[in-house]
Amino acid sequence: MLSHLSNYEIILASQSPRRHELLQGLNIPFEVKVIDIDEENYPHQLVGVDIPMYLAEKKADAYLQSMNENTLLITADTIVWHEGHVFGKPKDKADATRMLKALSGKTHEVITGVCICTLTKRKVFHVISEVRFARLLPQEIEYYLNNYQPYDKAGAYGVQEWIGYIGVEHIDGSYFNVMGLPIQRLYNELKRWKK
Amino acid sequence: MLSHLSNYEIILASQSPRRHELLQGLNIPFEVKVIDIDEENYPHQLVGVDIPMYLAEKKADAYLQSMNENTLLITADTIVWHEGHVFGKPKDKADATRMLKALSGKTHEVITGVCICTLTKRKVFHVISEVRFARLLPQEIEYYLNNYQPYDKAGAYGVQEWIGYIGVEHIDGSYFNVMGLPIQRLYNELKRWKK
Repeated sequence: MLSHLSNYEIILASQSPRRHELLQGLNIPFEVKVIDIDEENYPHQLVGVDIPMYLAEKKADAYLQSMNENTLLITADTIVWHEGHVFGKPKDKADATRMLKALSGKTHEVITGVCICTLTKRKVFHVISEVRFARLLPQEIEYYLNNYQPYDKAGAYGVQEWIGYIGVEHIDGSYFNVMGLPIQRLYNELKRWKK
Repeated sequence: MLSHLSNYEIILASQSPRRHELLQGLNIPFEVKVIDIDEENYPHQLVGVDIPMYLAEKKADAYLQSMNENTLLITADTIVWHEGHVFGKPKDKADATRMLKALSGKTHEVITGVCICTLTKRKVFHVISEVRFARLLPQEIEYYLNNYQPYDKAGAYGVQEWIGYIGVEHIDGSYFNVMGLPIQRLYNELKRWKK
């Protein structure tokens, strides 16, 4: 499958081990590169889906000068969007506790922006999943933060970890998007990718 | 967490490696036992949710005589329910092809029935997830069946495999339920379990 892309060198520019795992699931060869950009830094008038789309493009821009004509670059950014606020990666345990308390018993949106680009073409899209958390007990939040490392995860939780098992009541949309990459939509975009 | 169950010997009676993995995610000690029952054999008047609930109870019944007063047994059965028909485990490649063609481009229900029981108490429940498949190309179905083994999976697909990555457009409900065990609901039931 996706053999029309075999002339490309596909690069996933992301530090996230979840994204590596998800892209691996497509059974296509790719390389991982890491770009450091400041994820906190986006125009303050942006809201909702525009934030991760902006950041995905910014990650792509940071890589542009390293690309050649055979490079197909994939970048992504995931945020938790809840009651008009962005929940990014928590700074510390207090911040993570605050986020999980705010998400407890409520529904939030997980939004991933994805940018696919070559030197001559660019496609940016986003996917939204709605996630409903059960009411979390303070000792459940405490247990999670003492035993797991949510500091590289938007909204301070990994849906594929203990907190996702015991806490996520309902997902409306793509589970893999909540992990960090809307893999079915990405596959679709790659399937119809033309030079 | 779930320390009120520490006097029980928890048994998961299931052959499914997905169920083992999901229950492991709760971080509670348990043992796996395998019971052979005839999953094809249920009263023909049963429809929908009643089928996996009946089969989960039947699996529990098959284990009853091996239980002692400290045993807490968990059994489960998962079916795909589509347009009034049950899709169980496919018999062969032709059967798997037929199932995937029928699911392609449509929404079906994945229903897991779960039975938790001790010698003196029994709780049976079910969880439904709606899964929407993209339109699958014949060569995508062929690729999946040539490279994966869906013969122990209801509806001939593993949502956590390639076909789930490229094919599942949308889930309404629990992703883990589609894998075979509604782990958040199970945790909730265990949390309120009293002798």
